[in-house]
Amino acid sequence: MRKNILVPIDGSEHALRALGEAVEMTKAFGEKIILLNVQYDLETFHTRRFFSREQIQQYEREMSEEVLSPAVEVLRKYDVEFDVKTRIGSPKKEIIAEAKEQKVRSIVMGSRGMGSVMGTVLGSVSYGVIHEAPCPVMIVPARE
Amino acid sequence: MRKNILVPIDGSEHALRALGEAVEMTKAFGEKIILLNVQYDLETFHTRRFFSREQIQQYEREMSEEVLSPAVEVLRKYDVEFDVKTRIGSPKKEIIAEAKEQKVRSIVMGSRGMGSVMGTVLGSVSYGVIHEAPCPVMIVPARE
Repeated sequence: MRKNILVPIDGSEHALRALGEAVEMTKAFGEKIILLNVQYDLETFHTRRFFSREQIQQYEREMSEEVLSPAVEVLRKYDVEFDVKTRIGSPKKEIIAEAKEQKVRSIVMGSRGMGSVMGTVLGSVSYGVIHEAPCPVMIVPARE
Repeated sequence: MRKNILVPIDGSEHALRALGEAVEMTKAFGEKIILLNVQYDLETFHTRRFFSREQIQQYEREMSEEVLSPAVEVLRKYDVEFDVKTRIGSPKKEIIAEAKEQKVRSIVMGSRGMGSVMGTVLGSVSYGVIHEAPCPVMIVPARE
């Protein structure tokens, strides 16, 4: 039995707009929201020359908290139950992995995120998520 | 204030699977489902040579009823409130028009319909609807 709503947060306005829709669904179902931010892995041969693994991971955590904090504020205001998660890797792959692990009811996301290519209808992350999601994906448009 | 769920029905298995998701949402929100089938307009110079406008419209209505009937049966079984609509024209355009007129909460549809091109992730109708929808669009995957 699938439940709860996964909302990927990438720091874009689109993601926050999608969050508003997710709040309504979550309230209707009496479930909770799982906020997920995916950070690219900064640990490479080059970064490791200058920083320790711990420093790099600490920086990734801080970046993720910064991106997630406006979403957390929104959810506190609406009095909705939620979990906050950070994953490191490729956004599409990690969103799908989280959806599978948590067996979520659905993924709710904006039509485009920060990494979208101008001129395409769907950002590549949204498109990729629709392609491989184990559950329904709700795409929230940018316009009113 | 948007409400109710629009479910386009094209006679495909994908559409019926999407309907199952729409039932859950509709129950959670305590609203209703609007089943919509879009029939291509058969009235052309050529068909008018052999049939009256009334005969053509009657045939379109019958085609639509046939496509909608399995969906209607599903909804009766689940005891969900619903309306049934037929529109004549291009699927994408008519789905968008209905969503705007009814100010629906969201459109719930399968990742592909009958008119989809093999090998694409999203059928052209689903993709077109996401592109122009005035509301969130939930895409329900074909697989489990």
